[in-house]
Amino acid sequence: MVHALDAADVLATKREAFDLPEGVIYLDGNSLGVLPAHVPSRMAEVIKDQWGTSLVRGWNDHDWIDLPQRVGARIGRLIGAAPGSVVAGDSTSINVFKVLSAALTMRSDRKVILSDNGNFPTDLYVASGLAKLLDAGHELRIVDPDKVEANLGDDIAVMMITEVDYKTGRRHDMKALTAKAHQHGVIAIWDLAHSAGAVPVDLDGAKADFAVGCGYKYLNGGPGAPAFLYVAERHHGALNPALTGWMGHEAPFAFDLDYRPATGIDRMRVGTPPILSLSALDAALDVFDDVDMDTVHRKSVSLCDLFIKEVESRCPELELVTPRDPSVRGSHVSFRFEEGYALMQALIAEGVIGDFRAPDIARFGFTPLYLSHADVVRAAEILEGILRNKTWMQDEFKKKQKVT
Amino acid sequence: MVHALDAADVLATKREAFDLPEGVIYLDGNSLGVLPAHVPSRMAEVIKDQWGTSLVRGWNDHDWIDLPQRVGARIGRLIGAAPGSVVAGDSTSINVFKVLSAALTMRSDRKVILSDNGNFPTDLYVASGLAKLLDAGHELRIVDPDKVEANLGDDIAVMMITEVDYKTGRRHDMKALTAKAHQHGVIAIWDLAHSAGAVPVDLDGAKADFAVGCGYKYLNGGPGAPAFLYVAERHHGALNPALTGWMGHEAPFAFDLDYRPATGIDRMRVGTPPILSLSALDAALDVFDDVDMDTVHRKSVSLCDLFIKEVESRCPELELVTPRDPSVRGSHVSFRFEEGYALMQALIAEGVIGDFRAPDIARFGFTPLYLSHADVVRAAEILEGILRNKTWMQDEFKKKQKVT
Repeated sequence: MVHALDAADVLATKREAFDLPEGVIYLDGNSLGVLPAHVPSRMAEVIKDQWGTSLVRGWNDHDWIDLPQRVGARIGRLIGAAPGSVVAGDSTSINVFKVLSAALTMRSDRKVILSDNGNFPTDLYVASGLAKLLDAGHELRIVDPDKVEANLGDDIAVMMITEVDYKTGRRHDMKALTAKAHQHGVIAIWDLAHSAGAVPVDLDGAKADFAVGCGYKYLNGGPGAPAFLYVAERHHGALNPALTGWMGHEAPFAFDLDYRPATGIDRMRVGTPPILSLSALDAALDVFDDVDMDTVHRKSVSLCDLFIKEVESRCPELELVTPRDPSVRGSHVSFRFEEGYALMQALIAEGVIGDFRAPDIARFGFTPLYLSHADVVRAAEILEGILRNKTWMQDEFKKKQKVT
Repeated sequence: MVHALDAADVLATKREAFDLPEGVIYLDGNSLGVLPAHVPSRMAEVIKDQWGTSLVRGWNDHDWIDLPQRVGARIGRLIGAAPGSVVAGDSTSINVFKVLSAALTMRSDRKVILSDNGNFPTDLYVASGLAKLLDAGHELRIVDPDKVEANLGDDIAVMMITEVDYKTGRRHDMKALTAKAHQHGVIAIWDLAHSAGAVPVDLDGAKADFAVGCGYKYLNGGPGAPAFLYVAERHHGALNPALTGWMGHEAPFAFDLDYRPATGIDRMRVGTPPILSLSALDAALDVFDDVDMDTVHRKSVSLCDLFIKEVESRCPELELVTPRDPSVRGSHVSFRFEEGYALMQALIAEGVIGDFRAPDIARFGFTPLYLSHADVVRAAEILEGILRNKTWMQDEFKKKQKVT
């Protein structure tokens, strides 16, 4: 049955586009994507032929100066964003600050930022830091994910949520929540960290106002790859950036003393873009050129469904926390297990790489571009073996590392 | 005489540490540093062996998580900053926002940010954007560089200036200005973009409060390399970051909903660090391991003095705008020429790469680690030839490019 699924997999050959290490079943592409096989040679070219040979002329000769917009447009295709509405650069955290400060300026008559406790903490930290900085009575209201809709009201300035919960994998209904937000005059900000490159996203279709997302998860841009941000075209004219750097200036090379915002999404740029990291992300996006997100998502559902079924039948001591319904989840599956940390370390030692999210979540990401159904079954078998033989109880697996 | 200078140059062999293109005299290391020769192989290792093989385990196995602090400490040695007071990451513009917002919070009873019109525009843009965002009556007061001292008074919250003027090369007296600022209770922020790696800087000795700087100029970290920021140790306890991302959290992997600032400089971190770009900067810093900044500076003075003498004797139509006195200048030399843009394009066409700064400045940077006195004389000869033969008047050299 598993062989049949793999035989019918139209994305099966995509695995060759990645440089997967031997002996590893990698179920953590939602934390750090796998190295695409062509990225090392592309980066050697960028480093030697672009930086080394062109030197400062590279800004013109290789059009480094517009790389953030070019990469942004490529990501835009994957998330339903019109060309010119996405720009790559900075970190997700910085981009949250950029879009949230812009949104609060647009809706300055209201003071409540609505989010949920399934949001990734950095988004909440950035929001609370911004509220403190503004010192204008803003409140960050954090509710349960299923209470977001009920909390949308005429007092809310901005709804800022992550579509796919980093821990549970639960996926919000972007279109419905955005529509409801708009009924109340609320600006909708979506964090696509666990969505972009994994599930179909239609920002323009959902009429989202702003979005941010991550370059190093399903987009495979490398560790700490630049993030991206989206601003709906209808807001470009009134957009008031708080981080006003020279790359967002109308004429950066006029070196005027006064800031004049550039038009369009360019206005959201700040400093000089990190060309090496951006080039790696740019190259990594090549693997998406000939795939559409619906195909990717169909395979994601198939892999996740199979993993849930295999684990539940083999390991009843693990409690599924991810929704069973594929229409309300992302591309990772999480199980609760009190000794989840040690369990994950034991799994990693046997070559099944997932990760742990405090306090007790073992998390497994399924990247349709490089995983097979056979990988899924093998991972479940190894998991079962660890549980049956209680190898996770060994002391070595309980030693905490800096990054979990 | 030139041969004697090069023969006596203790840094002459450092040139071999760089991969300089054939036929180029590179006088733009103050815009984008040259590729150090070992960086391509180091980056191949980071990409293939770290990202490719370790995957997400790299955060622990290669200690990526602390790379910003490690790189910061290496930069700290070059700028007189104690270990633990510098962190690398983000862009200079973002770092200006971070330190300026922290400084304004510390001195919230005052509303004036003092800067000068020789500051790099992005610093001014960031300051005006922050003032607008705060909406608390802050004023950005921009004066002539030689009027900064006289404008320091009890109404000034923060003095935010760039030590070496990106256009003219004029260098402020960091120690004296900081002391004067402190007499008036003014917080001193220094931008070291054109200082770090070029002139001796002693942040701790000068009792500077905050500093920022650039990784891609004299530090040779690659196009758009991560920047750095410094906070004097005495301020660490009271430091109030405005950009509160998870990497500045006391326990990022506890995934708490509430922000609790980390101790020390870690608090100024925000998002996930761009490991590829940071690794290139880290590798590039190796070339500084066995040199001290006084030696570097002595050669810088010698190269700049020689260039001024050669150009002034050969090209009287160029007007020197950089101070003749080495104690008040950085490591670049600028000349005013009405057709400076076309002149620079003609120079670049003949392999002498400097740059142009609007409206009429031809700018030449002298990086002591890879330039010889013979390069300096040859560059002046080529410049003279272009002026004598009026080749800069050709139309092709007047075509404006995006990046000047």
